[in-house]
Amino acid sequence: MFSREQLQAIIDKKTKPIGALGVLEKVALQVAYLQDTERPKIQQPSLIVFASDHGLAADGVSAYPTEVTRQMVLNFLNGGAAINVFCRQHGIDLSVVDCGVNCDFDPHPKLTQMKVRKGTRNSREEAAMTKEELDLCFEQAAKMVDQKAQAGSNCIAFGEMGIGNTAASSLLMSALLSLPIEECVGKGTGLDDYGLAHKVDILHAVTKRAGKLTDPLQILSEFGGYEIAHITGAILRAHQHGMLILVDGFIASAAYLVAQCINAKISENAIFTHCSDEKGHRLLLEHLNASPLLDLQLRLGEGTGCAIALPIIQSAVAFMREMASFDKAGVSEKT
Amino acid sequence: MFSREQLQAIIDKKTKPIGALGVLEKVALQVAYLQDTERPKIQQPSLIVFASDHGLAADGVSAYPTEVTRQMVLNFLNGGAAINVFCRQHGIDLSVVDCGVNCDFDPHPKLTQMKVRKGTRNSREEAAMTKEELDLCFEQAAKMVDQKAQAGSNCIAFGEMGIGNTAASSLLMSALLSLPIEECVGKGTGLDDYGLAHKVDILHAVTKRAGKLTDPLQILSEFGGYEIAHITGAILRAHQHGMLILVDGFIASAAYLVAQCINAKISENAIFTHCSDEKGHRLLLEHLNASPLLDLQLRLGEGTGCAIALPIIQSAVAFMREMASFDKAGVSEKT
Repeated sequence: MFSREQLQAIIDKKTKPIGALGVLEKVALQVAYLQDTERPKIQQPSLIVFASDHGLAADGVSAYPTEVTRQMVLNFLNGGAAINVFCRQHGIDLSVVDCGVNCDFDPHPKLTQMKVRKGTRNSREEAAMTKEELDLCFEQAAKMVDQKAQAGSNCIAFGEMGIGNTAASSLLMSALLSLPIEECVGKGTGLDDYGLAHKVDILHAVTKRAGKLTDPLQILSEFGGYEIAHITGAILRAHQHGMLILVDGFIASAAYLVAQCINAKISENAIFTHCSDEKGHRLLLEHLNASPLLDLQLRLGEGTGCAIALPIIQSAVAFMREMASFDKAGVSEKT
Repeated sequence: MFSREQLQAIIDKKTKPIGALGVLEKVALQVAYLQDTERPKIQQPSLIVFASDHGLAADGVSAYPTEVTRQMVLNFLNGGAAINVFCRQHGIDLSVVDCGVNCDFDPHPKLTQMKVRKGTRNSREEAAMTKEELDLCFEQAAKMVDQKAQAGSNCIAFGEMGIGNTAASSLLMSALLSLPIEECVGKGTGLDDYGLAHKVDILHAVTKRAGKLTDPLQILSEFGGYEIAHITGAILRAHQHGMLILVDGFIASAAYLVAQCINAKISENAIFTHCSDEKGHRLLLEHLNASPLLDLQLRLGEGTGCAIALPIIQSAVAFMREMASFDKAGVSEKT
């Protein structure tokens, strides 16, 4: 067993001024401690995109029609989406899971079918999902993570696709952090000011209908969606496997927030890969005491921030594994 | 010839909300415009580390002894430094150039010997380099860049090693931007407060000795160093080749500042890869109107920020080359 101090001492002996690799040193320390080794390594990084529709989308909380969820899943399967490009670039094993898209997909070798239902219920009228559905989400998510862990992956990222899911995420954030809904809502994939005001009105109606809630699982089932519940369950399971967990943008962070309310220890495994341009994410990260690696004004979802940030995490573990130490390299230390 | 508007329209047709890839879209546009293609590509990325000693280091402006310049060059040649790790990680062609280290190196297949002199003169007493030496720096740098361009590289980065070179960079920044020396000076590789105060005193003595200066080439020769002059010359040459130029931290940015005072058009080719933790860099970037890709509190030099940021630039050009468009993927656009 390595202590953090032992691992930090190893980092400090590398041929560089103390602390000169900044955030990379913190990442190296985190991964090395998690893996209990002075030679940390990212193995078979995997990324699972969970896709699902939202009943609340019928109320017009998104700039895009709900058919886009289905269309984008097909785009993922055909390799044409941004997440495909970035996973190919970095050798990330990409899985696409239909856990609740409002359509029937033909069987496809790259599609994992785990549909809970054709979209959540409309949370303005009733709970987005039942307790049984939430259990199924966690069960299915655990199964997916188990497969990746058994295949040798020690680093897992989660992405999502679901028209309306920034709305669900804002509801989760507002309820779990006791924040006014206005501070948690943004323009999603591109609402104008009018659309944003409408979205806020709808979300107020949802919270009014749901009433005061405190239990994180109940909050998750009230507001959904299935893809968010899968990510929450997958994060909890990945932590049990000791995997490094990469957290993407606003929606993935909301799913993470639910998971952290259930088990605060997951933070030891988590790296927040970027700060999204979606309003609410920066505040959410602050509440999570998270320092994201990147701030590139991304707001695409799909897990793209995780994929783009992976090489930086790989740089961190690589310097720890491969750099020479002062004594071995014959380099003088600070006077 | 593609206009920026044509290239932006191509980006906007990719299967993502408009602008959802944030900074990556700006990078894609810049590279595509520079390469005049809708299919931009980074080819054979190369990184040249220029190493040299500084006469001013004798006055104690660094926390490390000057022997470290030589020792770190040997570390580069043995593959044990941070820049070796990151160049290996990303397939970057790394060259190490001795342009002024205060020692005699044995011949080594990985070392390019272009020594101008064994360290610059002490700029507190006299100009760091002569006009003839500066000309030689530019000439040698151009030769190195020509070789890379002829070998097929269209993306070049520059790193440096030279104990004392944050001091020289602060002097350049102060003189070229007419800023008080205090705003341009930081702790370098790890001075304490006492060391920093001493560094400021020394730099005041240098500026007093040099007197008022306005010509960027004279400023460069007064304050040095040889590695900085090589980077300045190399940037100007890389621009002539139409190469993408990656700018590293404080010292590389100071070299870039000199180059920009000579030819403002280089900005079209330049990507600022990160904001260093060295005090002065953020202010320098503001004066250059530069938005760095990363803010990871790096302060190592060697070109490490460029190497770490390269995959993000590659992500930018990859999404432009590889992502499906809305019509081709059958995805609905915003309502």
